[in-house]
Amino acid sequence: MNAEQLIAKHAARLDRAATACRTRECWSPFPELPGKLPDAERVQREGKAAFEAHLGRPFALDQPGEIGRLGEEVSPYTGAPLGIDYPHADLDALFTAARRSIDTWAAAAPALRTGVLMEVIDRLYARVIEIAHAVMHTAGQSMNMSFAGSGVNALDRGIEALVYARDALGAVATGARWERRFGPATITLDKTYRLVPRGVAVCFTCASFPTWNAWPSMMASLATGNAVIVKPHPATVLPMAITVQVFRSVLAEAGFDPNLVTLALDSTAEPIGMKIVKHPDCAIVDFTGSVRFGQWVEKNAHPALAFTETAGVNTVVIDSCDDLDAMCRSLATTLCMFSAQMCTSPQNIYLPATGVRVGCGADARTVAADEVARNLAAAVAALVEEPRKAAMILATIQSPQSLALIAQLRDAGNKRGRVLLDSRSYPHPEWPDARTATPLMLAVSTAERDLYGEERFGPISFCITTRDAADALDQATRDVKEFGGLTAFLYSTDEATIERAEAAYARAGAQLTINLTGPMPLNFAAAYSDYHVTGLNPAGNASLTDLAFVASRFRIVQSRRPAPATA
Amino acid sequence: MNAEQLIAKHAARLDRAATACRTRECWSPFPELPGKLPDAERVQREGKAAFEAHLGRPFALDQPGEIGRLGEEVSPYTGAPLGIDYPHADLDALFTAARRSIDTWAAAAPALRTGVLMEVIDRLYARVIEIAHAVMHTAGQSMNMSFAGSGVNALDRGIEALVYARDALGAVATGARWERRFGPATITLDKTYRLVPRGVAVCFTCASFPTWNAWPSMMASLATGNAVIVKPHPATVLPMAITVQVFRSVLAEAGFDPNLVTLALDSTAEPIGMKIVKHPDCAIVDFTGSVRFGQWVEKNAHPALAFTETAGVNTVVIDSCDDLDAMCRSLATTLCMFSAQMCTSPQNIYLPATGVRVGCGADARTVAADEVARNLAAAVAALVEEPRKAAMILATIQSPQSLALIAQLRDAGNKRGRVLLDSRSYPHPEWPDARTATPLMLAVSTAERDLYGEERFGPISFCITTRDAADALDQATRDVKEFGGLTAFLYSTDEATIERAEAAYARAGAQLTINLTGPMPLNFAAAYSDYHVTGLNPAGNASLTDLAFVASRFRIVQSRRPAPATA
Repeated sequence: MNAEQLIAKHAARLDRAATACRTRECWSPFPELPGKLPDAERVQREGKAAFEAHLGRPFALDQPGEIGRLGEEVSPYTGAPLGIDYPHADLDALFTAARRSIDTWAAAAPALRTGVLMEVIDRLYARVIEIAHAVMHTAGQSMNMSFAGSGVNALDRGIEALVYARDALGAVATGARWERRFGPATITLDKTYRLVPRGVAVCFTCASFPTWNAWPSMMASLATGNAVIVKPHPATVLPMAITVQVFRSVLAEAGFDPNLVTLALDSTAEPIGMKIVKHPDCAIVDFTGSVRFGQWVEKNAHPALAFTETAGVNTVVIDSCDDLDAMCRSLATTLCMFSAQMCTSPQNIYLPATGVRVGCGADARTVAADEVARNLAAAVAALVEEPRKAAMILATIQSPQSLALIAQLRDAGNKRGRVLLDSRSYPHPEWPDARTATPLMLAVSTAERDLYGEERFGPISFCITTRDAADALDQATRDVKEFGGLTAFLYSTDEATIERAEAAYARAGAQLTINLTGPMPLNFAAAYSDYHVTGLNPAGNASLTDLAFVASRFRIVQSRRPAPATA
Repeated sequence: MNAEQLIAKHAARLDRAATACRTRECWSPFPELPGKLPDAERVQREGKAAFEAHLGRPFALDQPGEIGRLGEEVSPYTGAPLGIDYPHADLDALFTAARRSIDTWAAAAPALRTGVLMEVIDRLYARVIEIAHAVMHTAGQSMNMSFAGSGVNALDRGIEALVYARDALGAVATGARWERRFGPATITLDKTYRLVPRGVAVCFTCASFPTWNAWPSMMASLATGNAVIVKPHPATVLPMAITVQVFRSVLAEAGFDPNLVTLALDSTAEPIGMKIVKHPDCAIVDFTGSVRFGQWVEKNAHPALAFTETAGVNTVVIDSCDDLDAMCRSLATTLCMFSAQMCTSPQNIYLPATGVRVGCGADARTVAADEVARNLAAAVAALVEEPRKAAMILATIQSPQSLALIAQLRDAGNKRGRVLLDSRSYPHPEWPDARTATPLMLAVSTAERDLYGEERFGPISFCITTRDAADALDQATRDVKEFGGLTAFLYSTDEATIERAEAAYARAGAQLTINLTGPMPLNFAAAYSDYHVTGLNPAGNASLTDLAFVASRFRIVQSRRPAPATA
């Protein structure tokens, strides 16, 4: 395929995606479930086989600077090492190769770069089942979530980043004829505007949800002409190694230097995070991961740009509702989803001591905060009672540290509050050695803020009783401002309360979902429609996806000269 | 005027400016010379009187937190203090007032905010002569430059920032209806997207060119819903005090809190720069000034965003030219313009030891580097020989420190190179006590890089002989990358050399002007057409004006809720 063909092949889909970004309507070119793939059975069989072929083998990645091999992944489903090793690359060699790769790429027309990257989307999609299995056996997600959240939705977020990059690049004229009088003379200049990439971007990916942030970040950096070095969490490498492999092969086929995308792996014992951020050639950092390192990156990346998504305490405010059971079911589902190992999972649930008004009109009644908490705990317990259903929704626990944290907080809860629902391991019906835990729910007062005043990663939540609904909103939004927060959830049948909450959460910078019940997971974030992270609180400084996510990844350099004299 | 009328009043001009930003053609709604103002004579007389009315008086600025009065301005033209004092405000009081002012402003429609700010442009324009005199007697510019560079061009840069802010804000939908199937059910959500400002912006302005960077920065922050505290250099307060007064009165007339714009003055003895940047309510910093403090701001502003323009060494590479005299005249003019106290003034002039090829074809000859340098020095000398002409172009020296620096570098030049052209004071024909200095030009070799390897603020330049033209380009672009650089100038009749230079300066990140001769000042930067600062080298991280200059000054916060059931 030549350049024109590549651009033409993907133009319609990119235009359609641009429309969706503008209208924020629901759209995706991909099916939401693996069973809905064309030729689903064969594709699923072959994808699984492709994943299994990686196990116990060196991963083939022909990139520069290999000084050894690394690999320490362990499946949360089997408890066994994946036995895959990857290149351990010399950092300087990667940066040098990346730097050298940029000039040709940056000189290509933005439309060609976007075309090449849309081709990457297609190729990742072709390997989506293999990638989903890789996510499952590293991050610990269920197959359906791996496919949707770490597969097709992540691809959608990638396309979305390309739309914004195209907009930002397209806003700059390529040249101009400029003419003005200076005194008696007229000066006519021809001006040329070049879009110059910042240089080498580094993309950190996290252990529990690697592709969803990585793909849009990589697309944003590459579309604007930069090279990308991927630095995966050592626990979750395979999805990113496959990603790097796909980018490299598509870039090479299109005639570009594959070293535009490389993998920089480290080990838990010898992390390279700080070194890579402070490397003199590091020009952009995309970081998803812990608050602590994310804050370090924001403070220390200079002169590199930093785009971060870390974590926070996502809050729920319950004022009143139409249907107590429906609300509890929805909240319970979200508390269970992937064992709350998502940056969008709620943690702090605020309940007014004055009670929750349920229903309206003559049927309205006030339910005590305690009873609401018990109902919620019962809804969670019901969801995870049956191992097959538990497996579907909870999946596994990515890190053994989460189990230790559950134990620690159970103790604290017993001492300083009450355990509303205890956590236990559940037997996974297909994977007997899976690392599992049902949700731990604690009831505490606002005096125990040190317990819930930070992200407690994993299936841990707090029901916190406040003076009244107004206090609940105050407490919740204060948490967000102080500790960060991405999502927020409100139940209220009172429009004035809703309006106040919308304003308060807007100031705090959390994306608010109001009165949602039914089958949609409360924390579901749709590409092209839902903005992810506001940048207004410590949970991260970058948003998927707005113009700010792409606009500073390239710069404009001009040259100007007298226009040739006309004959 | 109500909101609709205000928006309608300015719509056509803003649309016209948007077209210019897109095409990068030459456009301005303002005349370039004070004499071309409508009713010029009266307007100039009244503007001068308005300026003079400030002298020796307290400046009326009814803003909160006044704890005393400050004022230490001295006119570079008269050597006498202006005798104006301004409020010395308590920082916490300013931040608190600014924070309180934001909500109503942020809730206003973006189009209304833009309309109000276009009205500010009109009101600043109405006081442009008064402002020009204020710039003259603080920054030391000539009347014509004050009017053009610090008056109408600065207004153009302000309008340009409004265009980009409008684009970035307008790219976000205000709401959406989103509908998707989840299993057997359909979920329909109404989504609302709010544009939320970051908070309180601080705008640092410099002593020598205050309004040109300040107005676009203020417009960018305010249009996106933020408040602005202006922190002027204590030597150049009056232009910014008038600015703050104009913003405040227009905001108040439009029904907004005037504390959206306030003035935070400090003194040379007790600077507040670091304190204001590290204030917990500081959300955005715009900084124009020294490299040292600018770098500190970039590194330490977090969590505030930093937009900087500092300085660098602007370079000239002379390879070959058609007309030696025309080239030398143009370079000489630019070396003299406002005594090279502009961030765009050239400093390091690279000449090949192999000589400069002049003319083409049979008439071509090679002129020794030394002779070119002597010609250039002669062209400068000719420009400043006659006091009246010198006054027009050199104006005055803003800071006594520049005179000390000239003396220091004259000594160094005598010891380590050669003084090509010595600096002297020239007698200003209208202002006998004016602080003046003609340009100092030194000839040095590349061994003296420590002399020219940083910005030497004021009328100081270096002719540096290199091995050949290729070496000249290498040296020059290395300077830019290492020490920063905003503008660059090339003379070459060879297209291959031009192409190499364009690529090299694009990588280094300096805006390149090629082979320009004639009446246009080489370092003239046109709003709507010329990008100012690339952000690719230490001379600053922000560009006037691209989407990146505005896109991150606001964030997007959404709320979503089930759509009302249809009847």
